[in-house]
Amino acid sequence: MADFRQQALDYHEHPTPGKISLALTTPAETAEDLALAYSPGVAEPVREIAANPDDVYRYTNKGNTVAVITDGTAILGLGNLGPLASKPVMEGKALLFKRFANIDSFDIQVKNTTVEDFVNTVANIADSFGGINLEDIKAPECFAIEKALIERCKIPVFHDDQHGTAIVTAAGMLNALDVQGKQLKHAKIVCMGAGAAAIACMELLINCGAQRENIYMLDRKGIIHTRRDDLNEYKKLFANNTDKRTLEDAIDGADVFVGVSGPDVFSADQLSLMAAKPVVFACSNPDPEIKPELAHATRDDLIMATGRSDYPNQVNNVLCFPFIFRGALDVRARTINAEMKVAAVNAIRAIAKEPVPAEVLKASGSASLEFGSQYIIPKPMDPRLLERVAYAVAKAAVETGVAAVDMPKNYMGMA
Amino acid sequence: MADFRQQALDYHEHPTPGKISLALTTPAETAEDLALAYSPGVAEPVREIAANPDDVYRYTNKGNTVAVITDGTAILGLGNLGPLASKPVMEGKALLFKRFANIDSFDIQVKNTTVEDFVNTVANIADSFGGINLEDIKAPECFAIEKALIERCKIPVFHDDQHGTAIVTAAGMLNALDVQGKQLKHAKIVCMGAGAAAIACMELLINCGAQRENIYMLDRKGIIHTRRDDLNEYKKLFANNTDKRTLEDAIDGADVFVGVSGPDVFSADQLSLMAAKPVVFACSNPDPEIKPELAHATRDDLIMATGRSDYPNQVNNVLCFPFIFRGALDVRARTINAEMKVAAVNAIRAIAKEPVPAEVLKASGSASLEFGSQYIIPKPMDPRLLERVAYAVAKAAVETGVAAVDMPKNYMGMA
Repeated sequence: MADFRQQALDYHEHPTPGKISLALTTPAETAEDLALAYSPGVAEPVREIAANPDDVYRYTNKGNTVAVITDGTAILGLGNLGPLASKPVMEGKALLFKRFANIDSFDIQVKNTTVEDFVNTVANIADSFGGINLEDIKAPECFAIEKALIERCKIPVFHDDQHGTAIVTAAGMLNALDVQGKQLKHAKIVCMGAGAAAIACMELLINCGAQRENIYMLDRKGIIHTRRDDLNEYKKLFANNTDKRTLEDAIDGADVFVGVSGPDVFSADQLSLMAAKPVVFACSNPDPEIKPELAHATRDDLIMATGRSDYPNQVNNVLCFPFIFRGALDVRARTINAEMKVAAVNAIRAIAKEPVPAEVLKASGSASLEFGSQYIIPKPMDPRLLERVAYAVAKAAVETGVAAVDMPKNYMGMA
Repeated sequence: MADFRQQALDYHEHPTPGKISLALTTPAETAEDLALAYSPGVAEPVREIAANPDDVYRYTNKGNTVAVITDGTAILGLGNLGPLASKPVMEGKALLFKRFANIDSFDIQVKNTTVEDFVNTVANIADSFGGINLEDIKAPECFAIEKALIERCKIPVFHDDQHGTAIVTAAGMLNALDVQGKQLKHAKIVCMGAGAAAIACMELLINCGAQRENIYMLDRKGIIHTRRDDLNEYKKLFANNTDKRTLEDAIDGADVFVGVSGPDVFSADQLSLMAAKPVVFACSNPDPEIKPELAHATRDDLIMATGRSDYPNQVNNVLCFPFIFRGALDVRARTINAEMKVAAVNAIRAIAKEPVPAEVLKASGSASLEFGSQYIIPKPMDPRLLERVAYAVAKAAVETGVAAVDMPKNYMGMA
């Protein structure tokens, strides 16, 4: 690990500090070029946009730009380290946006003050961008922040830690249940963790067919139930009218375990209590709620996913966020609604059920990948994600009336 | 002009909308690359920065980033067209930063609300960047905005419309007076216009040796004098204790005319009233305060500069802003102080007095350029600007104690 640490630091320090830079898309060599790029030529698109604000999408890069914005209060699993320390993660997100969806992204760190001040700051600058990806903002503030910004901004605002995680989790979960021969609407679900990702995952599973009363969500104090008086408004939505109180109570006979909490909080004994053919998503990173080796040694009828790339079935947000924004930007969606999220879930699911292209096999280092317990979620390097997820999201945006323009012709190569 | 208009619009629309995009500076092809760029590798620089905030300059692009920020209240000479319409200009500025000084810049449009709200918004996001270039913000708000942001931010904040214009004007003016055999400290100066650029130009000329009592500044109501009771605090600094009231009164016997107002407000008759060997900077763009043809036909002892590239002696901010930020960033200056501005003035002046490299001659389309009435200011394409201005500015920052680090070794190739 010492070597990997140094390798990661070197990667960030060289060839220049950081990972991203600006590039020019137009010629800027001669005096003639510059007369078009800046004064006097630049006055022409300015006048056009002043007369017709929509022309900003024609003459500037606004429509291909996503700001990655944080206050640094929940950086990865490392906690509240402040805006400055979040910068490598935010630049990393920008790198992924570019790498996977050719979106021009840059990162903005906002001083950690109040929810109101944060919202006001971001709303004041929002018109600069085509979309806003909120990142690494702690719960419960992230819920109020996202809600207020969605109301105030005319562009999509998407808290990836919530919805990106939820979309990939839901896609993998539905596929895992298919393999196990179970249905989401009948599944008894235990959710370990009650933070931003947990709540978004459960909300989206409900949108996909799960029954709210079948969900047992646990925070540090145990099961969230209707007789607790210490619940914020977001947890309250998951208060179960039950006598169960502990993880043991909840897991007994459960079909699904979703962990978005911390390392090693789920034991082999607890896993043994689950129903036949269980599904375990242990997403705490880098150390999952239960180690895959231990889980598989305990149950051979298990399907398991983690957040790690070195095990099968990685729940990785990069399967979703570049492409959901690609689709939203390409039809100038003013928001990312539930239908667009479900469309992304279904597009991701479908890819995992189809034959895997040779290039993906090669990149993943696998001899073969076939839909089943070891392969319920597509690989991050799968080029079909861009086409299929973006297409599905753009289509859902147009169909639900939140798109300002129609789908481009032959969008993503689809007639 | 119809053709140029269409050419400018085409330039902005193709090959993709706008002029700038994101580029990656590190490899991002394989799963191994991404494990370094994002999770889990990215946690390492995060931890380093959390422990030692200065490491943000080592592991992220902060130190090479300048945000170009506006509220769109004074776009070029076009007025208050709003944040959105300013975007082509702001992207153009980012293009120039990259083209001339390899600075990674991006543009942020802030809703036009109150000075306080604007300042708070920008201060909240300032830590994301290495510097802030304020742009196209109207007077007098721009003064209060810049002052407040300089106080609240730990990074250089520079309103280019004020100080970029002032630095290039001062450099050209001092050289023009040299050619005319005059001294700034004795020069009688008329400044037509009392906006942001005008006030900054006069302040910097005073820093360079001009006497405040020798300056007659005019706004729409005529000379700014001590018996007027309609002056804001910024104009008040230039209230002259004089009985003169009109441009005719002021220009009579003046050595210098600086126009930062509007087209054709300075007549041949008025020019005739100036002292022998006058200097006229008619910077209104694209139409100067007096047409060069008319001015030269009126006086053959004249040195004239304009804001236009198609006449000799172009006052062009691009001679300054990329390089003053380059120098400031390279020593992590926490501000851009008066000494750094004067250092930039002197570096620009010196270049014009030296032999011109062949490549600059070629790019400028001139057979020869020799220091004199037709060549008092370097050409924008002169590669010496980067080295010399950045070096002078960085040196001044270190010498005045506002730099966080020393000059890099052999900085800009200077031992």
